[in-house]
Amino acid sequence: MNVGDADPRAALVEINVRRSVFYPRRNHVDWITVRGFELAHAATPWAPPTADQPGLIGPNWAKGWIIEDNHIHDAKCSAVSLGKEASTGDNYFTHRLDKPGYQYQLESVFTARQYGWNKERIGSHIVRNNLIHDCGQNGIVGHLGCVFSTIEGNEIHTVATKREFYGHEIGGIKLHAAIDVQIVGNHIHDCALGIWSDWQTQGTRISRNVLHGNSRDLYVEVSHGPYVVDHNVFASPAAIETMSDGGAYVGNLVAGTVLLQPVMERPTPYHVPHSTEVAGYASIYGGDDRWIGNVFVGNGGDPTEVAQAYDAKLWPDALITYGTGIYDGHPASFEEYMGAVRAALPGDVNVYWNLKNPVYLRDNVYLGGARPYAGETGAVVSDEDADVRVTDVDGVVTLGITLPAAVADHRFGVVTTADLPRVRMVDAEFDNPDGSPLVLDVDLLGERRDAPAVAGPLFGLTAGRNEVTIWPED
Amino acid sequence: MNVGDADPRAALVEINVRRSVFYPRRNHVDWITVRGFELAHAATPWAPPTADQPGLIGPNWAKGWIIEDNHIHDAKCSAVSLGKEASTGDNYFTHRLDKPGYQYQLESVFTARQYGWNKERIGSHIVRNNLIHDCGQNGIVGHLGCVFSTIEGNEIHTVATKREFYGHEIGGIKLHAAIDVQIVGNHIHDCALGIWSDWQTQGTRISRNVLHGNSRDLYVEVSHGPYVVDHNVFASPAAIETMSDGGAYVGNLVAGTVLLQPVMERPTPYHVPHSTEVAGYASIYGGDDRWIGNVFVGNGGDPTEVAQAYDAKLWPDALITYGTGIYDGHPASFEEYMGAVRAALPGDVNVYWNLKNPVYLRDNVYLGGARPYAGETGAVVSDEDADVRVTDVDGVVTLGITLPAAVADHRFGVVTTADLPRVRMVDAEFDNPDGSPLVLDVDLLGERRDAPAVAGPLFGLTAGRNEVTIWPED
Amino acid sequence: MNVGDADPRAALVEINVRRSVFYPRRNHVDWITVRGFELAHAATPWAPPTADQPGLIGPNWAKGWIIEDNHIHDAKCSAVSLGKEASTGDNYFTHRLDKPGYQYQLESVFTARQYGWNKERIGSHIVRNNLIHDCGQNGIVGHLGCVFSTIEGNEIHTVATKREFYGHEIGGIKLHAAIDVQIVGNHIHDCALGIWSDWQTQGTRISRNVLHGNSRDLYVEVSHGPYVVDHNVFASPAAIETMSDGGAYVGNLVAGTVLLQPVMERPTPYHVPHSTEVAGYASIYGGDDRWIGNVFVGNGGDPTEVAQAYDAKLWPDALITYGTGIYDGHPASFEEYMGAVRAALPGDVNVYWNLKNPVYLRDNVYLGGARPYAGETGAVVSDEDADVRVTDVDGVVTLGITLPAAVADHRFGVVTTADLPRVRMVDAEFDNPDGSPLVLDVDLLGERRDAPAVAGPLFGLTAGRNEVTIWPED
Amino acid sequence: MNVGDADPRAALVEINVRRSVFYPRRNHVDWITVRGFELAHAATPWAPPTADQPGLIGPNWAKGWIIEDNHIHDAKCSAVSLGKEASTGDNYFTHRLDKPGYQYQLESVFTARQYGWNKERIGSHIVRNNLIHDCGQNGIVGHLGCVFSTIEGNEIHTVATKREFYGHEIGGIKLHAAIDVQIVGNHIHDCALGIWSDWQTQGTRISRNVLHGNSRDLYVEVSHGPYVVDHNVFASPAAIETMSDGGAYVGNLVAGTVLLQPVMERPTPYHVPHSTEVAGYASIYGGDDRWIGNVFVGNGGDPTEVAQAYDAKLWPDALITYGTGIYDGHPASFEEYMGAVRAALPGDVNVYWNLKNPVYLRDNVYLGGARPYAGETGAVVSDEDADVRVTDVDGVVTLGITLPAAVADHRFGVVTTADLPRVRMVDAEFDNPDGSPLVLDVDLLGERRDAPAVAGPLFGLTAGRNEVTIWPED
Repeated sequence: MNVGDADPRAALVEINVRRSVFYPRRNHVDWITVRGFELAHAATPWAPPTADQPGLIGPNWAKGWIIEDNHIHDAKCSAVSLGKEASTGDNYFTHRLDKPGYQYQLESVFTARQYGWNKERIGSHIVRNNLIHDCGQNGIVGHLGCVFSTIEGNEIHTVATKREFYGHEIGGIKLHAAIDVQIVGNHIHDCALGIWSDWQTQGTRISRNVLHGNSRDLYVEVSHGPYVVDHNVFASPAAIETMSDGGAYVGNLVAGTVLLQPVMERPTPYHVPHSTEVAGYASIYGGDDRWIGNVFVGNGGDPTEVAQAYDAKLWPDALITYGTGIYDGHPASFEEYMGAVRAALPGDVNVYWNLKNPVYLRDNVYLGGARPYAGETGAVVSDEDADVRVTDVDGVVTLGITLPAAVADHRFGVVTTADLPRVRMVDAEFDNPDGSPLVLDVDLLGERRDAPAVAGPLFGLTAGRNEVTIWPED
Repeated sequence: MNVGDADPRAALVEINVRRSVFYPRRNHVDWITVRGFELAHAATPWAPPTADQPGLIGPNWAKGWIIEDNHIHDAKCSAVSLGKEASTGDNYFTHRLDKPGYQYQLESVFTARQYGWNKERIGSHIVRNNLIHDCGQNGIVGHLGCVFSTIEGNEIHTVATKREFYGHEIGGIKLHAAIDVQIVGNHIHDCALGIWSDWQTQGTRISRNVLHGNSRDLYVEVSHGPYVVDHNVFASPAAIETMSDGGAYVGNLVAGTVLLQPVMERPTPYHVPHSTEVAGYASIYGGDDRWIGNVFVGNGGDPTEVAQAYDAKLWPDALITYGTGIYDGHPASFEEYMGAVRAALPGDVNVYWNLKNPVYLRDNVYLGGARPYAGETGAVVSDEDADVRVTDVDGVVTLGITLPAAVADHRFGVVTTADLPRVRMVDAEFDNPDGSPLVLDVDLLGERRDAPAVAGPLFGLTAGRNEVTIWPED
Repeated sequence: MNVGDADPRAALVEINVRRSVFYPRRNHVDWITVRGFELAHAATPWAPPTADQPGLIGPNWAKGWIIEDNHIHDAKCSAVSLGKEASTGDNYFTHRLDKPGYQYQLESVFTARQYGWNKERIGSHIVRNNLIHDCGQNGIVGHLGCVFSTIEGNEIHTVATKREFYGHEIGGIKLHAAIDVQIVGNHIHDCALGIWSDWQTQGTRISRNVLHGNSRDLYVEVSHGPYVVDHNVFASPAAIETMSDGGAYVGNLVAGTVLLQPVMERPTPYHVPHSTEVAGYASIYGGDDRWIGNVFVGNGGDPTEVAQAYDAKLWPDALITYGTGIYDGHPASFEEYMGAVRAALPGDVNVYWNLKNPVYLRDNVYLGGARPYAGETGAVVSDEDADVRVTDVDGVVTLGITLPAAVADHRFGVVTTADLPRVRMVDAEFDNPDGSPLVLDVDLLGERRDAPAVAGPLFGLTAGRNEVTIWPED
Repeated sequence: MNVGDADPRAALVEINVRRSVFYPRRNHVDWITVRGFELAHAATPWAPPTADQPGLIGPNWAKGWIIEDNHIHDAKCSAVSLGKEASTGDNYFTHRLDKPGYQYQLESVFTARQYGWNKERIGSHIVRNNLIHDCGQNGIVGHLGCVFSTIEGNEIHTVATKREFYGHEIGGIKLHAAIDVQIVGNHIHDCALGIWSDWQTQGTRISRNVLHGNSRDLYVEVSHGPYVVDHNVFASPAAIETMSDGGAYVGNLVAGTVLLQPVMERPTPYHVPHSTEVAGYASIYGGDDRWIGNVFVGNGGDPTEVAQAYDAKLWPDALITYGTGIYDGHPASFEEYMGAVRAALPGDVNVYWNLKNPVYLRDNVYLGGARPYAGETGAVVSDEDADVRVTDVDGVVTLGITLPAAVADHRFGVVTTADLPRVRMVDAEFDNPDGSPLVLDVDLLGERRDAPAVAGPLFGLTAGRNEVTIWPED
């Protein structure tokens, strides 16, 4: 127990042994609503994806919970858990060491399918409009149990900033297998990681969130998509890390570094669209991403050094840029990719193993030193100082940005499913969880458009200086 | 149409357009017995694991067929098919080229599970005491549909020896996903490949077969086991190729080269024991094999050159030896392996990626230049000339072998489940399909023992020259 | 061949042997759109729920077809089939006679689950804006394969009116297991049966349809619900037959007889909501229905005799009334039902076997001799002549109805999920296919309301005579 | 607490609050062996099939336990539990009363299938050679979790004889869903019920057990078979009650009453053979039984009154006889049954509802007033006094019986699968759990035969008086 400067002989000392505040002992206690409480002070244990994952509050492997309008804080590890239970694997790697934790994690996906991990039984939770802060590990965590859930309108801050723990499960929001999860309109700041979507990010949408002051904002790891990231503000120095395929990034402000890292030796599962049913598994080639109408801003320094300042363990061959130079060398269309395939055949895995995935970029804006992917035509590039500033005064967050006229004059139409080529490996469309087509026509503040608009997360930006209140939304 | 030296103007020419002789149009026509027929002359198409796989005869995705005492010959491609149907994938790679055939094949495993690929519905066939010959591709073929089947007492010869076709689905017996399949007491000779068990060789037993005169005798590819190979005669110059983990080789005569090749970039599924349920997937590290009481005989030349003479496409880094030198550098016990793990941690996949699997060898005999694995203690090695000869006179096959006295004097007890350490990755025992313990106490001729016996497939071998009739059995 | 009065020696005679016009040979050919064709003249065979069910057009066991804007006519049996294939049962009763067809049908549900009958693989079709007519058996048919489909805006007429066939699978729309099927805005007239939803009517919605001139309009058989029937016009003399539990009837015009018949000896399955997963099975007790804001009109004669005129095989103890007198003797609330349970306990099935299900009625209007259920309080009853007339002139359908002032003055609020008590046996809510709450705020013509409105399918009806064009809608 | 005549002020009083002695907290703790312990004194709660079912010892929803050579006694309710856990239903009827317990029980079967109730995960336990006694409810209990288990060589006595509890889950062995369970060679005496196999008795075998001194010996309830009862001694006054279809009774001594009761209003599931997969459900028609080579002995009094003396709640229309007169009126062959079907058609459920199932009887012996089914030809009937006595002296049990010469002279061959017609409703064969044919060639004492033998459980019986030690078997 580290009490810092306090004198435990003089102060009131409360030692908490309560594992959870509101967490059923049994699985499958469905359809509970928890609304309007202050929930605090739980000695939750570490919650990795390969073990039982208790939180201060959570459904413990059930369906249809609503957790809203609560003030949730001071969990030793995780505040809200939508995660798995023990029978699908509980620290087997730690106990046995005979196979990697990775291996036990992938086995847990298959075991879970046998134990009822499906839309009928698990997930579909709503975590909405909560204030969550001061947690040692995660604001919201969840492997498997989070599927089909909505995480909306929450403010999450001060997570894992004490650096009490080290491990691969830390973040404002840290999910595994976030199938069809909608992460919308949250404000996440001052966390060790903002949003970390790990494994099986498929059908997932990360839309209209404000992230700043985090060690890293968004990390999408070993996933195959399709997933959508639209109309967010990523304002931390290390903005986006992708060790995945199959993303669609539309209308974001990316004011920090962007990273790309293939992961060939850790193949992960992918699923039948909008289902937990496993359809296959594959290595992470990297690429197969779509970037339309985003605003990238370089904020100085060597981007690799900037990113490494926030993660000393970055892979040495990770590609890190301001802008989309990470994709240089990838084909600029599916046709170009298929041409490369045909040229390299005959063969099988060995042929594809060495080919880079296609990428699809247009209508992006690159400011302050950010640079476009070599294959992008028509990118708007300017080295004027965009002077991006996100300021938080008494909970009111303001975005300041200076747009060159060329940026403000460049417009692009509403992006829909028809504009987003299918994901190659999963062979799936970008669509809504109910299978209807995507229409990405709402900006960060909830404004809807049907006409062409400026790049970035706010349709109303104009040339010159903009100062816009972006949180709270209303 | 290649008619060789015949003059088609003078000879009777019959052009066969009959795809199959006895093959239901519908799936799920169960419990059919076909006994005592001559079945011949079918223009069966190529039957890869990623397409519909019709044969001259077969159940076409059903349960419980018995095909016995038939004479089956002259299929353009495959004689007996226990394979898959089209809805789980039908030449998608060929049509689309967007992903490797490997990828479509692994997807078909998951699709099949959804379409009823399980013990209740599919497989459990018996193919017994048939004479099968003169086929362009396979004597017996089958992906998925072969599960839980018994292939016993057949003679199969002259398969793919015209070299009409090239592809990864050729053999006297070529199976994929041969879960719990029992291949027992067959005589397979003069085939391009004798037995090729590809993907998901789990619960499979290859016992008391006689193989000779084949381009290669046994090839176990990208599988995780547990699988058992016991009391067989492998007498072709290229005897055994393993690109797999998890084998138990007991009491075989291996009179040709032995090959080992890890396959890290093509991870394949493994299953809950005795079930089609997928439990996970993994790369093929190679090793995790057991070799007890086998007789290895070198038959001259550089083993790599010998093997390459039969397969020009061998991977350049494949390990090829007479005997078990292929395992040099692997740990000799599970404890030694775990020591290496602990020394290399912390880490995860990256740690295991570079560690060789343990192997378990004892009581093997190495003759005529064959050499033991460096970690094997107590191996019997002799360079006397064993003079192995397999001769086939009017269908009666005789094995001749000369044993040194040291070999004849070395005895080892009956091998059972308790003697065979679990398979590391699959975490499964070597047992019978019904889960009862294995007892490997029957030799090639059906003799049962409960006392220690000499190494090799015949309990009755003695010092000096032996000449034994090994086919037909009784 | 019956040519009626034609002289086959003088006329052109075309004999059709084409089974289907557009119907894949293989299952699982997904995502096909057929738009804008005339599709006619197919000699489709009889398509019962216990056999292969081919139609003139259909997906043959697949997912995601769109069949729209076509003119489909003259099928010997069924025009559009969304039905099952053969492997889940193909006329076993007819071939074997050892068990009832009912038994083989229920077995096919379980077999289908094993062969991939789920939302991921089957159904979700759209059949929209087609003109379908002159079929011997069905306009649209389908067992199992129809799940999650939408049937919208079609005109269907002249089906089975030649009386060529007799059997339990005849109708403008005849579905089995119509899980989550939306039947909306269709015009169905001059058919032997308008809409027949048989077995497993769960999550089904029948909304805003116009039915008239049919032998019977709506028949819901051996189902447990929840299902919704709202804002329809049922104008045929025999309007509604229910041999089911679990209905919610809101805002309909019911201008003919209403029938209720329990079916204790044919228990049928029910499902996890919005899934094909079987949750249980139960006998059909009858009742557990909700009726809110409907307009019933008696149109003369003894209702039993009227109904029997259209179905000579009616069960002798079927209850038939104008209005809701069929429920007399049922408890008027869940609390009243539970009181009866508690009074009859201890016991088990024997106790419940003899108890009538609760019913929930309010805000209904009874005209022209129709009479309310004895337990309904506040019903508006008037014997003034409503003079309901549905006239079809050149495809334009007009509804005439005279409303007493008391009816026009009686108003009720929008009915939502919160107003519809859960179904007792299935223990499920009335909701939308995506699980969101129902809001029944749209009338037959597409008008939306948020204020209280008059009973019946048209929010705009006023006191006195109304003449409204109800088809085509726009 | 009832202390009888003891004075709690003077005696040592121990109050037990320990729920279980050896029972994991978590599910899925597999492959545990418990051998050689005394396990006693647990305050286990009531364990009905619709709740969590804890026992003094048990696996708590797991696979592959071995419980052998233990002395297990004094459980407040159940000693050994192989039963279900809570998530598949936990006293819902008691808590809600909205549906019968029967309904919640059948729903639990379907829920269990979704939560992994299958051969891969659950059951396959061995409970062997234990002494189990003095339990308030059951010696061995288990719903769902008992599948594929073996219960062999146990002595079970003094169960529920204090009559502390009333309920539908009491017995020496009380199982639900005993799929493929083998109950072999047990000695069960002085229990409220000997063996009660309830629901889904399919693939079950009850062989070579000795039952005497029980209120009732064997009760098979609401099951469809196929199940086998062979070579047992049923020596209690109320010997056998069947409210099931699909039995095969071979070589038993039945020295008490026999009861038959159809149960039409409680349809139960049946399964794909040797699997937990549900294949269908059906009412219990009664009959479809096979009786070959059994010895029936009447022991005086009116059989109905005798049976009622042991069960005051017997259904008033239950048929009770000494011998097989309960089947009078049933067809004597499948052909006769099918003739009745054809005569009654057309129709469907209504036709079959009123037809009695066929029965198959031959080679049975009826002594001391027992009488054969009217359709049995060749039955041996004698009214000589058989004087059956089962005596237990210091744990050594002797069977005394006097056989008339006509009985001893009547011989019948070994009964195999081929002699046992398929079960009509389930459409399944009588076979071993691995699908191999049954050969019923071993008698109560383990003697094997291949020649014709005398009726009853002991091949060595001769004319005149026999006195045979039947327990312990050794």
